[in-house]
Amino acid sequence: MKGKYPIGILGATGAVGQRYIQLLENHPWFEIAWLAASDRSSGKPYAEAAKWRLDTPLPERVARMVVSPAEPEGAPKIVFSSVDAAIAREMEPKFANAGCAVISNSSAYRMAANVPLVIPEINADHLHLIEEQPSRRDSGGYLVTNPNCSTIGLVLALKPIEERFGIEQIFVTTLQAVSGAGYPGVPSMDILGNVIPYIASEEEKMEAETLKLLGKLEGHSVTPLAARVTAHCNRVAVEDGHIESVSIKLGGKLGNKLGRPVTREDILAAWAEFRPLAGQDLPSAPAQPVEFAAQPDRPQPRLDRNRGKGMAVTVGRLRPCGVLDWKFTVLSHNTIRGAAGATILNAELLASLGKLEPGPSRWDGEPAAAAATAHV
Amino acid sequence: MKGKYPIGILGATGAVGQRYIQLLENHPWFEIAWLAASDRSSGKPYAEAAKWRLDTPLPERVARMVVSPAEPEGAPKIVFSSVDAAIAREMEPKFANAGCAVISNSSAYRMAANVPLVIPEINADHLHLIEEQPSRRDSGGYLVTNPNCSTIGLVLALKPIEERFGIEQIFVTTLQAVSGAGYPGVPSMDILGNVIPYIASEEEKMEAETLKLLGKLEGHSVTPLAARVTAHCNRVAVEDGHIESVSIKLGGKLGNKLGRPVTREDILAAWAEFRPLAGQDLPSAPAQPVEFAAQPDRPQPRLDRNRGKGMAVTVGRLRPCGVLDWKFTVLSHNTIRGAAGATILNAELLASLGKLEPGPSRWDGEPAAAAATAHV
Amino acid sequence: MKGKYPIGILGATGAVGQRYIQLLENHPWFEIAWLAASDRSSGKPYAEAAKWRLDTPLPERVARMVVSPAEPEGAPKIVFSSVDAAIAREMEPKFANAGCAVISNSSAYRMAANVPLVIPEINADHLHLIEEQPSRRDSGGYLVTNPNCSTIGLVLALKPIEERFGIEQIFVTTLQAVSGAGYPGVPSMDILGNVIPYIASEEEKMEAETLKLLGKLEGHSVTPLAARVTAHCNRVAVEDGHIESVSIKLGGKLGNKLGRPVTREDILAAWAEFRPLAGQDLPSAPAQPVEFAAQPDRPQPRLDRNRGKGMAVTVGRLRPCGVLDWKFTVLSHNTIRGAAGATILNAELLASLGKLEPGPSRWDGEPAAAAATAHV
Amino acid sequence: MKGKYPIGILGATGAVGQRYIQLLENHPWFEIAWLAASDRSSGKPYAEAAKWRLDTPLPERVARMVVSPAEPEGAPKIVFSSVDAAIAREMEPKFANAGCAVISNSSAYRMAANVPLVIPEINADHLHLIEEQPSRRDSGGYLVTNPNCSTIGLVLALKPIEERFGIEQIFVTTLQAVSGAGYPGVPSMDILGNVIPYIASEEEKMEAETLKLLGKLEGHSVTPLAARVTAHCNRVAVEDGHIESVSIKLGGKLGNKLGRPVTREDILAAWAEFRPLAGQDLPSAPAQPVEFAAQPDRPQPRLDRNRGKGMAVTVGRLRPCGVLDWKFTVLSHNTIRGAAGATILNAELLASLGKLEPGPSRWDGEPAAAAATAHV
Repeated sequence: MKGKYPIGILGATGAVGQRYIQLLENHPWFEIAWLAASDRSSGKPYAEAAKWRLDTPLPERVARMVVSPAEPEGAPKIVFSSVDAAIAREMEPKFANAGCAVISNSSAYRMAANVPLVIPEINADHLHLIEEQPSRRDSGGYLVTNPNCSTIGLVLALKPIEERFGIEQIFVTTLQAVSGAGYPGVPSMDILGNVIPYIASEEEKMEAETLKLLGKLEGHSVTPLAARVTAHCNRVAVEDGHIESVSIKLGGKLGNKLGRPVTREDILAAWAEFRPLAGQDLPSAPAQPVEFAAQPDRPQPRLDRNRGKGMAVTVGRLRPCGVLDWKFTVLSHNTIRGAAGATILNAELLASLGKLEPGPSRWDGEPAAAAATAHV
Repeated sequence: MKGKYPIGILGATGAVGQRYIQLLENHPWFEIAWLAASDRSSGKPYAEAAKWRLDTPLPERVARMVVSPAEPEGAPKIVFSSVDAAIAREMEPKFANAGCAVISNSSAYRMAANVPLVIPEINADHLHLIEEQPSRRDSGGYLVTNPNCSTIGLVLALKPIEERFGIEQIFVTTLQAVSGAGYPGVPSMDILGNVIPYIASEEEKMEAETLKLLGKLEGHSVTPLAARVTAHCNRVAVEDGHIESVSIKLGGKLGNKLGRPVTREDILAAWAEFRPLAGQDLPSAPAQPVEFAAQPDRPQPRLDRNRGKGMAVTVGRLRPCGVLDWKFTVLSHNTIRGAAGATILNAELLASLGKLEPGPSRWDGEPAAAAATAHV
Repeated sequence: MKGKYPIGILGATGAVGQRYIQLLENHPWFEIAWLAASDRSSGKPYAEAAKWRLDTPLPERVARMVVSPAEPEGAPKIVFSSVDAAIAREMEPKFANAGCAVISNSSAYRMAANVPLVIPEINADHLHLIEEQPSRRDSGGYLVTNPNCSTIGLVLALKPIEERFGIEQIFVTTLQAVSGAGYPGVPSMDILGNVIPYIASEEEKMEAETLKLLGKLEGHSVTPLAARVTAHCNRVAVEDGHIESVSIKLGGKLGNKLGRPVTREDILAAWAEFRPLAGQDLPSAPAQPVEFAAQPDRPQPRLDRNRGKGMAVTVGRLRPCGVLDWKFTVLSHNTIRGAAGATILNAELLASLGKLEPGPSRWDGEPAAAAATAHV
Repeated sequence: MKGKYPIGILGATGAVGQRYIQLLENHPWFEIAWLAASDRSSGKPYAEAAKWRLDTPLPERVARMVVSPAEPEGAPKIVFSSVDAAIAREMEPKFANAGCAVISNSSAYRMAANVPLVIPEINADHLHLIEEQPSRRDSGGYLVTNPNCSTIGLVLALKPIEERFGIEQIFVTTLQAVSGAGYPGVPSMDILGNVIPYIASEEEKMEAETLKLLGKLEGHSVTPLAARVTAHCNRVAVEDGHIESVSIKLGGKLGNKLGRPVTREDILAAWAEFRPLAGQDLPSAPAQPVEFAAQPDRPQPRLDRNRGKGMAVTVGRLRPCGVLDWKFTVLSHNTIRGAAGATILNAELLASLGKLEPGPSRWDGEPAAAAATAHV
């Protein structure tokens, strides 16, 4: 590969925007070419516009880049987006209509019928929905989304079970890290020594997104999984890493093809053998997307969130449930696997499928077309 | 009232032991007469034996009391116990056999068939089980227990619903404060910025105790509630106050006597009207044992745990559940309502029922018999 | 006493504003008559305008009060102010010019030559400066301020030493609670598992205010204490309670009148015997403003901040200093003694000195004049 | 290099022992050959004996190693030690007398006259003291120590200033992370939402060690720096990373060789140009041992502790001091630069000086002599 895809970032100064920058440093396929943020930041060098809050240094090259207005003019053909839903609702279609591949972490269009909501290990086939988008026909541009940070861990843990045994009912209680609320986000006076048993719209998102992700692409749309799901969402005093207590009822419409009761070993095997992207060499895909922690008191945010460079989900404490069938604990890194890494992995999947067009120019003046061609 | 019941405390230097001392300061009926702890502490003034860790001053009188060995000789006839289960297993029967009313927070005998597990607002009638205890006939002594800290909040929130509508299934995820593990308890390196998704034996205790508490005294034993219950227990970085995310399925063996679907208002009314101890004037009983917080993000440990002087349970976020029928959040102060206050309230109930004998002598040399007689 | 002084609050919805409301509930002399906040809040019932964040209930009466615009019209003659310095700079003179006693926690005018910066136990005589204010002559109104939250604990610990032995040099490092930054204040992502070694302008305030407070009223102005002072200010993950590590060099211009080296006992005695308000019966004044904690690891915010209902300062760890003479630790409750309680105590002092005029009307319609007269 | 030095670890299951294992994984010169811990652990596989608490995986090879008794028999000739002072006092001489190079993080012998207390960037020449140790002559074994976790950051920040301008007085207040107390260490009930203004013996260690480290090797012993130093030590709710607020008075016995006042730029230059190990290629030595953070609110533990892979110290907030001359903030990673990394860097220095003898055998059965020879 001689060149890299030039990437634009909408919402570059926010918490997820900073993670994009961190994770794209030295990325083998992608290179940051353009940064956009609110009017307040526009025109300033990134180092001045953003309060960098990660524990690795702000890359020098990015520090000096000037923040652009959030308009399609001058933007590259691939744009990662993580802006508030209200802003995304207006902004993302403008970029898609202008011919951009908008790969978004925002919630605005996740549940739209013709917008794919994708986790590459789960439902890569849903990407076909982009062909249903008018912008795709008009300008080539399209919109692809990844789920909410709390949904991703859950669905990665559920999918291997669902595809082998079916799932009828899902009960989940979250203990979510503060970084999920962005910056400044949760005031310290609200969360120190405390729990907030409420995150606006989070339960609704988790419930709806889970069923769409586990649903089936049929014709021009996705039929959601016919399961019942309920979520309790809580905020806790953790920096990064969402814990989820999950109970499930197996069976359901798919049935259990084993002809015998599902055992603990069956579920452990389903997780261990879940390697849907094996052989695809997506740079950010963890070798094992769902890791099982055998210790009785794991997973824990501080100790396990960085497994697979933050892209693996850790499950643990698998045991029978007194109400449904099985219960277990899930952990995922909410700003890597649950946000910035999710967008990047979606972009890698799109690149590997030939769905990313070369941009008009590379950030450093070399022709991006050539670079991208070299890659594809 | 001229005198007070003299009270002994087993495990007086521990976290719950300290709460007993705090809550009994200026108690209208009870007075600390005797403190016992491990051999290491025995013989020392309490102020030296214990590292006082509460934010109110250690009462001067207690500070100077000398810690006794944990033997029935010299102990008063009423003993509050909060020691490790392994120790309680041997120690509590010794005191009961010696004629003491052992009112315990320890888990050792909670599930024993002839030991009452009691929350006064829930199942005061279960106290009749003390008559099944051999020590009761031999020496007059007996053993009464209160539930685990995580069980109490749950059951107080469930009882008003259960008695009106029946409950078939119970799902609960806890977010428990570190004080529930005693002192030194949870190492800070384990919990700062972290969640521990495991508390040894806690889920088993919650599940079993809940059904016994909601069960029916039939003949010589309690028939547990015929419901299914499952618990997920997590430790979070909170000092005091357990949050619980709860879902329930109504109906069950008792049936819904309304003849129409149970509404949100029905449940709110059940909680609001739940005043089972009205008129009994137990000093530690909160006027309203279950308070509903109407704000969308409540209850919270820091803001709500001290309602009813730490003896009221706060519920909130009542809403339909996608898997069972209703879901809500419960908060209770784990070392007051969930431990020391629970023991004290049980003792108050026993006193009001005439089940507490006068002790042989009062701490200050006045005849305890007279004192107690004066009271009863 | 038949009535109470009607009190207005500027900045009523903020963190300190809420503390005023909490501390004035059942105050024997003062009654909240008027609440003002930003335009956004004006016209709404207080319960709707403010997100109540304290762990005692919002008083019902206050909950229903309608928030007024922050203009002198309709305000009572006594106004407590805790608004941002930039706002205070314009707003407080308007109220003083309109005849109000403005008793302020804001920093805008603390260092103005004709504005008293007062802690009643330290420098009540500085109140004479109000007579230097033009508004005092014109309308009767005036402005009195209390110090920064981090200054108050320091100066209360220093004063008993300074007045007996003199102080030449002061070194202080603070570990300040997040509530000092107001609400929303410090983002949780900044402080969880972290220290922020910087609080804007805090070191400058501490250094200047300390010397003015310990200074001498001479003629028409205060001559600051001729000592050298340096402050290092840090923010830590504590909800309430500022810890300060202090070293001092004795002597200086006042000299040591003992004729022998100052001993540890001398300093302990200075603290213990410091009761400058004895006999004045100010309702919020703690019996002992400076309490010494003898345990080696105290004071601690969680355990000691509520001494004297949050109005006492706790000192500990008195020991020789290898660079200056003595070193010790100070703790004070930053939103009670360090803010809202400081304003209230200043108001009590002014009332006891006859410097509070009756307001034109009481909140409940009774003539405030009568009420106040009855009191004075 | 064909082989590596075989390393033994005393105290292998503790918090610092785990850091040794983490940092030695893939170390180019050293290889863990032997692990020792208390009798309780001895004979067990390491994975079973230790509760691994770091966020990188326990290396497979180490997991399977069997923990040895803490006796010199069978130990390699190089031993890293991090055990409690009381244990080290007896154990370390036994290993030195048996011919081992004991490179220790324990405090037992740091201040012994013939024991070098060394930070390679500061006082490598002090290593000559090992020739004063009787064991060195008898068996070749010796003892080298590194300082306390709180001392190391301070002295690295002071040294560049001291060697250019001299330092007369040092004032330091620490805000120390809980990991400095080992595991289980600080109970969560003591530190959540709290500060503990006391760490036993810490202030004495900091004061004495600082002067020895900055002292001069003269003849057979070290003459400590003739400066005055005072330390205030506090524990805060941070996982890793000690913050220190420092004030200094320049000059002193060395004098200021500039002939003009020292400026802020002079000090910044002293830090920036401090590269005493340049050209020595010690694997764990950071390129720049003292990094200056220019942002006004840095360094911060969460954001800066991992600079230089945890081996660089970060300074910030350099500004004039009102009592002494200059004040600034220091941050260092207490379990890497302040403990395990300090020991390893000392070992690397000893290896580069030819002071590490080949051990009798390598862990994997290859002759360690050959390996070590190959290296030297």
